Amino acid sequence: MTEPAENNNQENTPTPLEQVTYLLQKYKLVEGFVQDTSDESLTESPVQKQNLTELHDFLNQLHPADIAHILEALPLEDRLLIWSMVKAEHDGEVLLEASDAVRATLITDMGSHELVAATEYLNTDEIADLAPDLPQEVIDDVFRSLPIAEREQLRSAMSYPEDSVGALMDFNAITIREDVRLEVVLRYLRRLDEMPDHTDQLFVVDRDEQLKGVLLINRLLVSDPDTLVAEVMAKEMIKLHPNDVAQQAANAFERYDLVSASVVDENDKLLGRVTVDTVIDFIRDKAESEALNLAGLSKDEDLFAPVLKSVKNRWVWLAINLVTAFIASRVIGFFEDSIEKLVALAALMPIIAGIGGNSGNQTITMIVRALALDQISTRSTWKLIFKEIGVSAVNGLIWGTIVGLLTFAIYQSPQLGLVMGIAMVLNLLLAALLGVLIPLTLRNFGHDPAIGSSVMITAVTDSGGFFIFLSLATIFLL
Amino acid sequence: MTEPAENNNQENTPTPLEQVTYLLQKYKLVEGFVQDTSDESLTESPVQKQNLTELHDFLNQLHPADIAHILEALPLEDRLLIWSMVKAEHDGEVLLEASDAVRATLITDMGSHELVAATEYLNTDEIADLAPDLPQEVIDDVFRSLPIAEREQLRSAMSYPEDSVGALMDFNAITIREDVRLEVVLRYLRRLDEMPDHTDQLFVVDRDEQLKGVLLINRLLVSDPDTLVAEVMAKEMIKLHPNDVAQQAANAFERYDLVSASVVDENDKLLGRVTVDTVIDFIRDKAESEALNLAGLSKDEDLFAPVLKSVKNRWVWLAINLVTAFIASRVIGFFEDSIEKLVALAALMPIIAGIGGNSGNQTITMIVRALALDQISTRSTWKLIFKEIGVSAVNGLIWGTIVGLLTFAIYQSPQLGLVMGIAMVLNLLLAALLGVLIPLTLRNFGHDPAIGSSVMITAVTDSGGFFIFLSLATIFLL
Repeated sequence: MTEPAENNNQENTPTPLEQVTYLLQKYKLVEGFVQDTSDESLTESPVQKQNLTELHDFLNQLHPADIAHILEALPLEDRLLIWSMVKAEHDGEVLLEASDAVRATLITDMGSHELVAATEYLNTDEIADLAPDLPQEVIDDVFRSLPIAEREQLRSAMSYPEDSVGALMDFNAITIREDVRLEVVLRYLRRLDEMPDHTDQLFVVDRDEQLKGVLLINRLLVSDPDTLVAEVMAKEMIKLHPNDVAQQAANAFERYDLVSASVVDENDKLLGRVTVDTVIDFIRDKAESEALNLAGLSKDEDLFAPVLKSVKNRWVWLAINLVTAFIASRVIGFFEDSIEKLVALAALMPIIAGIGGNSGNQTITMIVRALALDQISTRSTWKLIFKEIGVSAVNGLIWGTIVGLLTFAIYQSPQLGLVMGIAMVLNLLLAALLGVLIPLTLRNFGHDPAIGSSVMITAVTDSGGFFIFLSLATIFLL
Repeated sequence: MTEPAENNNQENTPTPLEQVTYLLQKYKLVEGFVQDTSDESLTESPVQKQNLTELHDFLNQLHPADIAHILEALPLEDRLLIWSMVKAEHDGEVLLEASDAVRATLITDMGSHELVAATEYLNTDEIADLAPDLPQEVIDDVFRSLPIAEREQLRSAMSYPEDSVGALMDFNAITIREDVRLEVVLRYLRRLDEMPDHTDQLFVVDRDEQLKGVLLINRLLVSDPDTLVAEVMAKEMIKLHPNDVAQQAANAFERYDLVSASVVDENDKLLGRVTVDTVIDFIRDKAESEALNLAGLSKDEDLFAPVLKSVKNRWVWLAINLVTAFIASRVIGFFEDSIEKLVALAALMPIIAGIGGNSGNQTITMIVRALALDQISTRSTWKLIFKEIGVSAVNGLIWGTIVGLLTFAIYQSPQLGLVMGIAMVLNLLLAALLGVLIPLTLRNFGHDPAIGSSVMITAVTDSGGFFIFLSLATIFLL
């Protein structure tokens, strides 16, 4: 195995990324000259060749995860240059470690032959992870190159939907029988060249591959070798099912501090296992894609993606926002007569809308989080609504008073201040009520409350805020 | 160990939370009557006693993590009732598993004596995790009750700042010497009652506790027992330092798929280890607190917190927002004459501001994420600015044209449509430029770019959008 980059943050130790960038610069500049890039390949000087070797050597002693990280941080041209220097035996693992967007740029740069070669160093479950990004002809070639048993594994691994437990599963479970002594198990293990990573337990199965229990490696090591497996194995264990949603596996790993867990079919037949490293990747990807969605990016974006690709990744949210902004605009348009009479309204109305939106988003975030953690029962819904309305009432009184007084100070009109204050209270109450109801309703209709809630609450507090404020003003001031 | 709740999502299996809620209801209602709650403790009928026993038994066979989850999902009154039923030996672990806000409500409900008792079932590193929430007298009592060696461990564990590697560290590393045969190691392990959880490697140290290498359990199991430790141990390993930021440990675990890693001081003396379960908790907490911060909640909030506590948790962001909203309002106020002459401006200006804010937040999210992953070098800053400006230019042309045409359709004024379109382009360009510069600047001044960026970009695109649109309108339309 290649060695991982040491993880200490002494200011003066350059990171692998810095070192590669430095070596790359050195390769591109030859002793002070910037070479004409079009000639580069023709006139390689000995110095340049040496620089190239240095870069090559440095790169290939890095861990594949570090190489992937470096590739992600480089602009496209440099990225492909570096990628061409990575040894074929690391290609597959680097592709696995790279983000979806960057992986796509790397695959586009490779020929079918190279891609098939890259998969030769991977397990079937890893090939299945790459498969959605590979051209069909490559997948066909890979299939043909595999032994029958692995073909079957690959077919099964590829059949599970993304975000299911099956997609996280690997086939590296070591199985043993319950009627042997630990001594035998130890001898069996000693005959292996190495054990799969993250083997913290052996799976005890019968002749039909039915899961009977698990033998923790820790128990194996502290128990008398003469004991039978059946005597020390645990019979209570986490069993995942391949069609469960992956989040359930993540929850189980988080709660019960697992390193690996079995995956079984409906008859308790052992299909494979899930390990904690895959779960960590899943948790990180999930958190990341939620953060991206919240900001209106459809998916993971390559930092150096071409402009049009980025535009495509971002337009949906902008379009939705344009629609809600136009609706709010029409609400204001409806009150143009009032604004014409009292132009201060135009300056004040965004305050009501803005703070309503913030307060609503605070509520939404609380509720969405509680829903994700499965903490809201029908019984507690009313309690939550009352609580959020209480919070908004208090906030409304505090901020309504402040805003009212400031308005009075600026415009010298007590009535205008009063309308501001009341509108603030009402819009915050609206934000609280819908901040609870929107995510709960989305969830009841089977939608993910994390995705649409924030847009919807902002739309409501904008249009609602303008409407409340302008209609109060029309009634009481004009 | 108590057994974990089975993690399958068959619709008809009630979750532990549902079962507790059901048993709690049954306990509170006795055969159809709702008892007057004030009399509850006085008139416990035999049926009620039986219900209570049932609830008690169900609860105490659950995993502490499941109990914590149930407590979090219950309103305060029910929560404390259930908490009083949890056996003392589980108290400590449940407190560890609960969120900070909920933990505080549980601790408030316990006497000093109970709290000291709860810590008796915990390791020193776990006590250190609870310490910030415990009253000083309890900590003093706990100290006195510990053997000298553990007192020293607790003192050292408590000395590391939150979010440092030291705060994630435990003291359960098994150490061995390099000059013994594996046979001896195996015999040594067999004399233990059990091995610490997440022991995937043994740490090889010399007489001065200096870390020489690690012996992977997997290597131990597959190697010939006659081999010397020195021959099979790995000399390249991840060494964390207690004062490193915890995120570094998380990055190392994610990248190199670790189960445990050593923590050493500046002389390579082994201090302890970090395990993957702690790292998962850290990753989850971090993701959660970022999501909360983004929504303007200062920290983790108990779903059923009292109203005033929630107000306190949320006011800072609302206050900041009020300030930026007032600034934007004054920008509009500056153009009141223009709005009086052409009241359509009032209805149209929020569109420019809103879409600018969205687009800016998209850029910010990309950049903040790239900064967190350490992907931005000084060299690539310009590339990023150009890219984001390119994206905004394209978006500006698309959305500017659409908005311009819609404006023309509604107000029948081609000039007004043109001003809308141009203002849109300019505000999107402003959003792109500052979307890159704000997080980079915050970072250069040593601030966390994730926290302030979103508020700042929205403030800029609001005030900036109003200013651009209204001044263009004043110049070209009036």
